[in-house]
Amino acid sequence: MPDLAINEELDWQERGLHYGDGLFETLLKLNGEIPLWQDHFQRLKKGCERLRIPLADENWLLRKVSRETSDQNSTVIKIIVTRGCGGRGLRLPAQNHSSIFVLKYAYTALADEDLALEVSMCQTRLPINRNLAGLKHLNRLDYVLAAIELENLGKKDEGILCDTDGFLVEGVISNLFFYRDGAMYTPTLEFAGVEGIMRECVIDYLRRHDIPVQVGRYSPELLLQAAECFMCNSVSGIRPIKAIDRQNYVTGPISQMLVNEFNPDVRSRPAATT
Amino acid sequence: MPDLAINEELDWQERGLHYGDGLFETLLKLNGEIPLWQDHFQRLKKGCERLRIPLADENWLLRKVSRETSDQNSTVIKIIVTRGCGGRGLRLPAQNHSSIFVLKYAYTALADEDLALEVSMCQTRLPINRNLAGLKHLNRLDYVLAAIELENLGKKDEGILCDTDGFLVEGVISNLFFYRDGAMYTPTLEFAGVEGIMRECVIDYLRRHDIPVQVGRYSPELLLQAAECFMCNSVSGIRPIKAIDRQNYVTGPISQMLVNEFNPDVRSRPAATT
Repeated sequence: MPDLAINEELDWQERGLHYGDGLFETLLKLNGEIPLWQDHFQRLKKGCERLRIPLADENWLLRKVSRETSDQNSTVIKIIVTRGCGGRGLRLPAQNHSSIFVLKYAYTALADEDLALEVSMCQTRLPINRNLAGLKHLNRLDYVLAAIELENLGKKDEGILCDTDGFLVEGVISNLFFYRDGAMYTPTLEFAGVEGIMRECVIDYLRRHDIPVQVGRYSPELLLQAAECFMCNSVSGIRPIKAIDRQNYVTGPISQMLVNEFNPDVRSRPAATT
Repeated sequence: MPDLAINEELDWQERGLHYGDGLFETLLKLNGEIPLWQDHFQRLKKGCERLRIPLADENWLLRKVSRETSDQNSTVIKIIVTRGCGGRGLRLPAQNHSSIFVLKYAYTALADEDLALEVSMCQTRLPINRNLAGLKHLNRLDYVLAAIELENLGKKDEGILCDTDGFLVEGVISNLFFYRDGAMYTPTLEFAGVEGIMRECVIDYLRRHDIPVQVGRYSPELLLQAAECFMCNSVSGIRPIKAIDRQNYVTGPISQMLVNEFNPDVRSRPAATT
């Protein structure tokens, strides 16, 4: 890759620090494999294209990830890609510059009894921003404010966020699904939110199993009438919701099916039969 | 300050990098003085309160700034304050943690003939976000997109940004003022934008000189009918606008008065009389 100057060290002029000028991926390495590598790389590539950040080629990045996590059989990997270093007053650096950082965090599989979430509807609203909607970018202050709100509520596992028009978007660190009247619903991410890899896997799985999936703008009232609902991301997998504030839910059959299909701790266990 | 744990080093878990979870100030040190120190510190303090980031006391910070810029008589100083290090998945660090970084950049006074700006109306829109509006926070991706747009246009000094409702907000790195029908107008920063220190100085100065200042939501059409207009920030001071796309403007008497009053290169010259 002669044309791309990749910075791999933290620098005081790092644009990720100064402007949040970049993207990230959070991936699971499980028993030596990164099961969703292709999906993560494709999302990163698409995000870099939208933000016009040059991206290293896939093999280079996969080698870096393998090298920097080689001491861990199972771990949570965070990849940060930015527009590199430099430029006071938002002046752009040369177009062939980027930074790529790979970090790792301990992975602990959730115990079955900790899987279901107690969540709260957040007062914090996500701004409507078509330019950045869907991207897993580094500008996460709105989510930090939601995390502060959740911390002040105490003992909540997750929060559900609406946009400034009052429509459901997602959780603080996961996407949202709810089932009612024979169809699964998930909020559109056209105006705000992050296009989750696990969300895509779930939509794809449900459609292949002839369960209709609707993607749109939904009010919180619809969610409160759901028969079952869950949140998901690519590290924790599927997490049924057991309560939204004072309203309780049971883990329904579709949520359970998806838990069995997607949860890494379930997947990594020896099969029960055969 | 026994209760506050201040990090002064770059760390891989720095929340400024991971989430843009912090604020910054850009200040001018001129001939050994920081003329607007109090205003910058007060804005930083207010921003930290809104984001619930603990801030070092003023003397500690001023000593750090003095120490780290002691080799420069005139320089541009950037102070970055964040919520410190740590927390995967947006988990908050201990409440008494923060990072404070002080960086410096070369200051060059603008030549008179380079002062007036050739600007463009940007297509990039700023999202409406009351939670973050006004703050000089580290989530600057919208402005990076605007800077990319400007770069693609070529040779523009600045861009004017509207919010997603189509109302004027500010420039990419400065605030905006325009004069028409006997009053000065500047966009409100209640929905988007940065509450500039120089903007406050200008509003204060104009009101003390009995020039009415209106702060509100204005359409770009009003700006195009202005008799004079300028942009400002605390490093460059007042910069008259000489053109917005194909429309030309002259540097009017009020803009000139403000240039004389506020521009550091003018201020630092020996007085013309007495």
